[in-house]
Amino acid sequence: MDKKELLKLLEEVREGAVPPADAVEMLKDLPYKDIGHTKFDHMRELRKGYPEVIYGAGKSIDQLKDVLIHLKEKKNNILITRISPPVFDALMDIYPEAEYNELARTMVVRKKHAETRDTYVAVVTAGTSDLPVAEEAAVTLELFGNPVKRITDVGVAGIHRLFDVLKVVREARVIIVAAGMEGALASVVGGLVDKPVIAVPTSVGYGAHFGGLAPLLSMLNSCASGIGVVNIDNGFGAAYLASMINKL
Amino acid sequence: MDKKELLKLLEEVREGAVPPADAVEMLKDLPYKDIGHTKFDHMRELRKGYPEVIYGAGKSIDQLKDVLIHLKEKKNNILITRISPPVFDALMDIYPEAEYNELARTMVVRKKHAETRDTYVAVVTAGTSDLPVAEEAAVTLELFGNPVKRITDVGVAGIHRLFDVLKVVREARVIIVAAGMEGALASVVGGLVDKPVIAVPTSVGYGAHFGGLAPLLSMLNSCASGIGVVNIDNGFGAAYLASMINKL
Amino acid sequence: MDKKELLKLLEEVREGAVPPADAVEMLKDLPYKDIGHTKFDHMRELRKGYPEVIYGAGKSIDQLKDVLIHLKEKKNNILITRISPPVFDALMDIYPEAEYNELARTMVVRKKHAETRDTYVAVVTAGTSDLPVAEEAAVTLELFGNPVKRITDVGVAGIHRLFDVLKVVREARVIIVAAGMEGALASVVGGLVDKPVIAVPTSVGYGAHFGGLAPLLSMLNSCASGIGVVNIDNGFGAAYLASMINKL
Amino acid sequence: MDKKELLKLLEEVREGAVPPADAVEMLKDLPYKDIGHTKFDHMRELRKGYPEVIYGAGKSIDQLKDVLIHLKEKKNNILITRISPPVFDALMDIYPEAEYNELARTMVVRKKHAETRDTYVAVVTAGTSDLPVAEEAAVTLELFGNPVKRITDVGVAGIHRLFDVLKVVREARVIIVAAGMEGALASVVGGLVDKPVIAVPTSVGYGAHFGGLAPLLSMLNSCASGIGVVNIDNGFGAAYLASMINKL
Amino acid sequence: MDKKELLKLLEEVREGAVPPADAVEMLKDLPYKDIGHTKFDHMRELRKGYPEVIYGAGKSIDQLKDVLIHLKEKKNNILITRISPPVFDALMDIYPEAEYNELARTMVVRKKHAETRDTYVAVVTAGTSDLPVAEEAAVTLELFGNPVKRITDVGVAGIHRLFDVLKVVREARVIIVAAGMEGALASVVGGLVDKPVIAVPTSVGYGAHFGGLAPLLSMLNSCASGIGVVNIDNGFGAAYLASMINKL
Amino acid sequence: MDKKELLKLLEEVREGAVPPADAVEMLKDLPYKDIGHTKFDHMRELRKGYPEVIYGAGKSIDQLKDVLIHLKEKKNNILITRISPPVFDALMDIYPEAEYNELARTMVVRKKHAETRDTYVAVVTAGTSDLPVAEEAAVTLELFGNPVKRITDVGVAGIHRLFDVLKVVREARVIIVAAGMEGALASVVGGLVDKPVIAVPTSVGYGAHFGGLAPLLSMLNSCASGIGVVNIDNGFGAAYLASMINKL
Amino acid sequence: MDKKELLKLLEEVREGAVPPADAVEMLKDLPYKDIGHTKFDHMRELRKGYPEVIYGAGKSIDQLKDVLIHLKEKKNNILITRISPPVFDALMDIYPEAEYNELARTMVVRKKHAETRDTYVAVVTAGTSDLPVAEEAAVTLELFGNPVKRITDVGVAGIHRLFDVLKVVREARVIIVAAGMEGALASVVGGLVDKPVIAVPTSVGYGAHFGGLAPLLSMLNSCASGIGVVNIDNGFGAAYLASMINKL
Amino acid sequence: MDKKELLKLLEEVREGAVPPADAVEMLKDLPYKDIGHTKFDHMRELRKGYPEVIYGAGKSIDQLKDVLIHLKEKKNNILITRISPPVFDALMDIYPEAEYNELARTMVVRKKHAETRDTYVAVVTAGTSDLPVAEEAAVTLELFGNPVKRITDVGVAGIHRLFDVLKVVREARVIIVAAGMEGALASVVGGLVDKPVIAVPTSVGYGAHFGGLAPLLSMLNSCASGIGVVNIDNGFGAAYLASMINKL
Repeated sequence: MDKKELLKLLEEVREGAVPPADAVEMLKDLPYKDIGHTKFDHMRELRKGYPEVIYGAGKSIDQLKDVLIHLKEKKNNILITRISPPVFDALMDIYPEAEYNELARTMVVRKKHAETRDTYVAVVTAGTSDLPVAEEAAVTLELFGNPVKRITDVGVAGIHRLFDVLKVVREARVIIVAAGMEGALASVVGGLVDKPVIAVPTSVGYGAHFGGLAPLLSMLNSCASGIGVVNIDNGFGAAYLASMINKL
Repeated sequence: MDKKELLKLLEEVREGAVPPADAVEMLKDLPYKDIGHTKFDHMRELRKGYPEVIYGAGKSIDQLKDVLIHLKEKKNNILITRISPPVFDALMDIYPEAEYNELARTMVVRKKHAETRDTYVAVVTAGTSDLPVAEEAAVTLELFGNPVKRITDVGVAGIHRLFDVLKVVREARVIIVAAGMEGALASVVGGLVDKPVIAVPTSVGYGAHFGGLAPLLSMLNSCASGIGVVNIDNGFGAAYLASMINKL
Repeated sequence: MDKKELLKLLEEVREGAVPPADAVEMLKDLPYKDIGHTKFDHMRELRKGYPEVIYGAGKSIDQLKDVLIHLKEKKNNILITRISPPVFDALMDIYPEAEYNELARTMVVRKKHAETRDTYVAVVTAGTSDLPVAEEAAVTLELFGNPVKRITDVGVAGIHRLFDVLKVVREARVIIVAAGMEGALASVVGGLVDKPVIAVPTSVGYGAHFGGLAPLLSMLNSCASGIGVVNIDNGFGAAYLASMINKL
Repeated sequence: MDKKELLKLLEEVREGAVPPADAVEMLKDLPYKDIGHTKFDHMRELRKGYPEVIYGAGKSIDQLKDVLIHLKEKKNNILITRISPPVFDALMDIYPEAEYNELARTMVVRKKHAETRDTYVAVVTAGTSDLPVAEEAAVTLELFGNPVKRITDVGVAGIHRLFDVLKVVREARVIIVAAGMEGALASVVGGLVDKPVIAVPTSVGYGAHFGGLAPLLSMLNSCASGIGVVNIDNGFGAAYLASMINKL
Repeated sequence: MDKKELLKLLEEVREGAVPPADAVEMLKDLPYKDIGHTKFDHMRELRKGYPEVIYGAGKSIDQLKDVLIHLKEKKNNILITRISPPVFDALMDIYPEAEYNELARTMVVRKKHAETRDTYVAVVTAGTSDLPVAEEAAVTLELFGNPVKRITDVGVAGIHRLFDVLKVVREARVIIVAAGMEGALASVVGGLVDKPVIAVPTSVGYGAHFGGLAPLLSMLNSCASGIGVVNIDNGFGAAYLASMINKL
Repeated sequence: MDKKELLKLLEEVREGAVPPADAVEMLKDLPYKDIGHTKFDHMRELRKGYPEVIYGAGKSIDQLKDVLIHLKEKKNNILITRISPPVFDALMDIYPEAEYNELARTMVVRKKHAETRDTYVAVVTAGTSDLPVAEEAAVTLELFGNPVKRITDVGVAGIHRLFDVLKVVREARVIIVAAGMEGALASVVGGLVDKPVIAVPTSVGYGAHFGGLAPLLSMLNSCASGIGVVNIDNGFGAAYLASMINKL
Repeated sequence: MDKKELLKLLEEVREGAVPPADAVEMLKDLPYKDIGHTKFDHMRELRKGYPEVIYGAGKSIDQLKDVLIHLKEKKNNILITRISPPVFDALMDIYPEAEYNELARTMVVRKKHAETRDTYVAVVTAGTSDLPVAEEAAVTLELFGNPVKRITDVGVAGIHRLFDVLKVVREARVIIVAAGMEGALASVVGGLVDKPVIAVPTSVGYGAHFGGLAPLLSMLNSCASGIGVVNIDNGFGAAYLASMINKL
Repeated sequence: MDKKELLKLLEEVREGAVPPADAVEMLKDLPYKDIGHTKFDHMRELRKGYPEVIYGAGKSIDQLKDVLIHLKEKKNNILITRISPPVFDALMDIYPEAEYNELARTMVVRKKHAETRDTYVAVVTAGTSDLPVAEEAAVTLELFGNPVKRITDVGVAGIHRLFDVLKVVREARVIIVAAGMEGALASVVGGLVDKPVIAVPTSVGYGAHFGGLAPLLSMLNSCASGIGVVNIDNGFGAAYLASMINKL
């Protein structure tokens, strides 16, 4: 029930068309219901042009198809993350125009163009093995209407590579750093720029890496300030936060 | 705003005393405000006779005094957990009639008697070192109006001690088991009774005990069914849950 | 040997039919044997209508068949948890009337109807990925004779969804909350109701989730009181405890 | 050496005032030196009005005095974090006009006013024990020129308290959430707003809290998107990142 | 109730002196009571000459005094572990003849001599810092009637020291190895002898030692067979097990 | 070089056949070489009748065949642990008379009979899922010449089952307890017997079991004394230690 | 841009061939660019004869082929680590002369001979299961021009085996110790030699080994000095460091 | 027994003064005894000029005095690590000429000059809080005869500081990097030099630093090759290994 409907109801009360006791009944559940509606409306308004996002890992093809069919009637773009090529193939029945990004393992359905910002987000990776996570971030950013500059393979083992592209990094509005191994790149970038850095530890590594724990702790303890950390391999989450900041 | 006030407002709308547009303004924040109110009222109703509970650890004497002074005008009983004797001494200025339980490290101010249930809660401990946690549970239970039977020092190293008191354990409506070391008592009790068991791992132990991690994992992995686990040393939390169950 | 049989034996002793020395032999193992019997009888009595429960994970089809054949002569209902469809197919040879719940991965054989309580248990899930754990709980609850209301997909990322169904949650006698990711739903529900909450962390998540450790710690440290925690993914255990409480 | 100086040198070379070989010597260390200078200059420019920040924990009074004396000649504001009252008293010899915030445990020396933004940062805390971390963030934000709105004690155990102030939270440009225990507040706030959320786990808790590990994992695994996490108790770091975002 | 008493009761039943119904009452609690008794008797019999053992850590002087006064009437030797010199001084009021071992931090009261075995237990330490744990083991062993040979400071950093005393180690019936740091000594000893080795990790170390976790894991993963591990710093536990084995 | 050879050399020196300086050269490496020999001889002597043991996990069929061919000429029994049925089938080419134990996953080649002790070792398991580990222990014990009594499925969830067989447990000379889940059985057995208990945590469990960590910590922190712990699932190691003790 | 080129540019400036403003443009990016170049040149110079190294794990055959094709024109030797036989087979299309080491799982392409040192590196392993890691180290060392002596299967369970080969170990210039299980071999070797020891924990083990954590902690806590530790299973890294030291 | 004594014994055998059988007896224990002697001699020879090193932490003043008195007669230099000023003051009674380094918390007694190498070791620190660990390393290195260049406060948050001193770092023969927080400095240095890097994680940090675990994992997972890691805060260990390498 929105403001207009509420006004209408109250006018009906004034006009005697609806007795006060009946109106009470109609308003009784308002607190809870309306939170839902208000929130929903509020969110929808804000989210104009936002894609519908589905986390694909662990969902069956049937479950994903159900969701996609449900979204058929909506006009929002669609992003499905973490699906394999065979899953994508099966989903193409529903959206033959969908695009699959093999590196990012994402499926995108474009129904309209998002407004695009002028300022770009830099997506920086330490090694080529971090690319899937970075690409998931890049695909997400672009679908949310953010220009993206990809800067790859500039890990600190050969720090000169980072200096070669430092200007591009510094002129971004927000920087995402995806790094596995020891994750030191986030600190180095954080020390060289004056922009918000979103650090994504990746599970790239072995042994005492413990599935991404090493770079996660490294990034949380960074001696450089201005770094916010998201979950291991969470390229989508980093992009969502970066997009929010870029669009402020 | 409760139902009666809402009805009154709507009647004023019908009578023309309040224009619909003004009523909309008055109702605009209803969803959020009322959640607060509803929740508050609902809670207050349910909590008739409930003590006010303050977690004392890490609060300064001044902070605690502020809270107590604020509660002066209320008629609820008061429970402060985890305070040392000198802190209690300082707080007696405000409530000279307060009682201190040295083992449980709790302070209680009784302003009225809680209704008491017939059925009792058994509070079972493995060793004498687990007593402070168990006593915190017992003090809490009693203040919430639950009879308590304390069964102490029946750890599994001498399991015959448990059998000596098994009947008392079995006839309780709910059983709290507080155990440190390896926490095996929770499993043994859980296997011998058909009542809900609330297991409290304690930090009593050393070495590979890791501050209570050993009995915590032990209790979560219990081969006996019907056991719910609370945080390490959380005697109050166990009692709160046990009281809820006992009062169903 | 129960009380009546013991009395009969002693009367035979008095009558000279059994010499004291022979009676000593018959009573010698009483302490141990009878614990077994007493426990057994006691348990059986209490468990009237209780299903036989078999944890299926890690058992071979042959092992499961052996157990089922052994249970053929008993009149109890049967619940096997965590079995895959092909295992179920193989077991249907023995119980063609068995039912398989694909989501919960449970097999149920109904031989009689359990007495059912009036009060229901609410089984609340944060996301659709938590459904298998929740459904294992629901299947268990129903077989134990508890009405169940399922409330799905009300995770805190869209908290308005929870408010839409708050009344159903609040009117339950016991609430089970199954949540992966960060498990915050347990705290939010715990803060909104005055009923015992059984929290089940699920292994749904990735990265720093560490197989369910994140929601497990979250639930153990909940700022809301009245929450008992069971092992990660332990839907059956949550249901067993909830049933115990619901049947008090 | 900046561009102008470099041009001047090259002109002197052309004019014969500086022989090429001498110029080579002067330029030899340019790569490394200039990085330093460039960075330094670049940073200084950006940091106009930035306070000098000193992490006080673990530094002796003598070490802190040395730093302060060294900063005497600079015109920047000064922020020292994590010092106790006696340390502050000792440091007042050098800056009698310094201000101490007992809750935040910070010392501030104001030498000039920072430009202030219109948009504010909301600093939200779950419980009163989280206030020191939140206040460290608030003091830092204000010194960096950001208006701050403090919203305290709105933890999810009584979620209606959050709804009472939701509008203030939603209208902030960036939101900092400081929460101990299970840290669920970050997820709940993240689900209700469309602004960047900086989550700070605090070490407030006990037992299976493991010094802040529980809320840290909780926040990293949040089901709500748009959350960046900083180190446990790192109020300063959260504020630094929030200020960066607010000033974009 | 032992066999003789049971026979007597049954004879009284036969003679009519005790009616069967009364006998049933007397026998009713037999299962549980007798487990206790049997266990107690059985234990006492086995434990002839066994000391009473009290774990002193975390007990107040008053608690320890209570226990000692309670033991006054018993003829068993007494061992209190992990008490500081001032605690010992306070306890001497009750047993002026008690002996304090400063290294082991143990108090011993000798009331009678335990039978002593011919075969000895070797207590081997890696470094001088491991001596307190080793000495706790040695004191316990001696009080239980086992000859002890102490072999100190033979850690693997200078393995020749171990070879100098290898014969003494090999001729022991059981060997206790107490080692901190990386705990490698247990493996080396285990590889050189054909006797049971009880390994005690100690908390001696720093950094990645994690309070004894490093040698604990090391000992559990030993490539040498025939090693049983006890808790970190648990000299008493190692001695108890070694004594059991030595006395077989 | 053994004693006889050394004597021969010295006699040659006396006879002038070998000059002292040459003898010095021949003896120079004695310290290291002879350790090897001495150890080897000593071990061989002690190990009369000992089986050769090969840890099969992670070894290829070719590697295992090489080892078996190498052992063809020796008269020792052979034990290979942790091999699957197909591996066993492949190895039967070399030893057609070999026996495979499907539960224990062990292969045994009997070439002679080990001397057998009178006293037996009890191998106690908590649940049927622990049987593979227990059976590995039992197979090992028997091959080493120890009578074994298997006591299965006596976990503490139904503790009466343990009491039914308590006498058999108590009369063993050594007891091995294999338990997964929370591993409480080790403590309960340890509290009921006065014999050495070797505790083997098993990886049977899920969730917060962490692959056997839960029962491992449980067993290390046991409130019962006289328990030595071996690595998770290490049935062979438990048996080796138990055999050593049984044969003292 | 090297010194000579810089001098030439400056001479052109003096001669008027290049105007100062143009020279500024050419020098503008010097700081960053030249770091790259300098580093690159410096590295290349030092790396004369160094192989190109590719970490093969997790790379697809296509990705590896791309890299190899790219390296076709270079004259450096090539080392690919951690690839399976089928991957190697696929890569032979590009380099038919490549050699595959099945144990080390490495592929080597030799285009020229590296200068070889006189001094050798000893690669010592505890058990045969550690050989893959050790062989990866050995292959790497040889390709980098270091003679290697392999000493295998000298784990501390039979320490005499180590003494048999001690001279070879002691005369190495650097020693690599690869050990799984408890990793004690590193400490024992470290105590017997006066040369740098590079310790490589391996993931060989089970249960409380936690994928190599046990030997990793063991090696970091070694009571022997002079040991540097690399990541679990990192044979390549150990060899790289050892080669650096050997070539000093 | 050394070579000369052995020759003498053999000559006595030849001369008939000692019968071969007696000589066998005298030589019987040679293997073990001589290992000790040989090792001892060998070590002493190699260690000419090496200081005696005592780890002071956890040792009482009396224990330290005993050690020092014992060393009075030896001509070696002495190094005691990790002692506080009051302990040093107490020890000056024995060596009034001893020097105390307040930062490193070391005591040094110089009795003679160690031969000094030409090549130096660079000791690099990330922050001023890492200085105590670095200084412990520097003091150790100097006492072992290595020139040291200290490079402080060049953490990656301001990486230009490292470039300012890069030449000094690159020209060292070995580099020690001591870093807390996230320890990224080790990777950055490792990527810029072609010399062995010894990385020392320090316990400087808080929250998710877990007492040095964060930089420890970071250093073990470094993307740069040529890094060996020692225990957290182990400045002495790093210096010992660096000295070994520098002296090759």
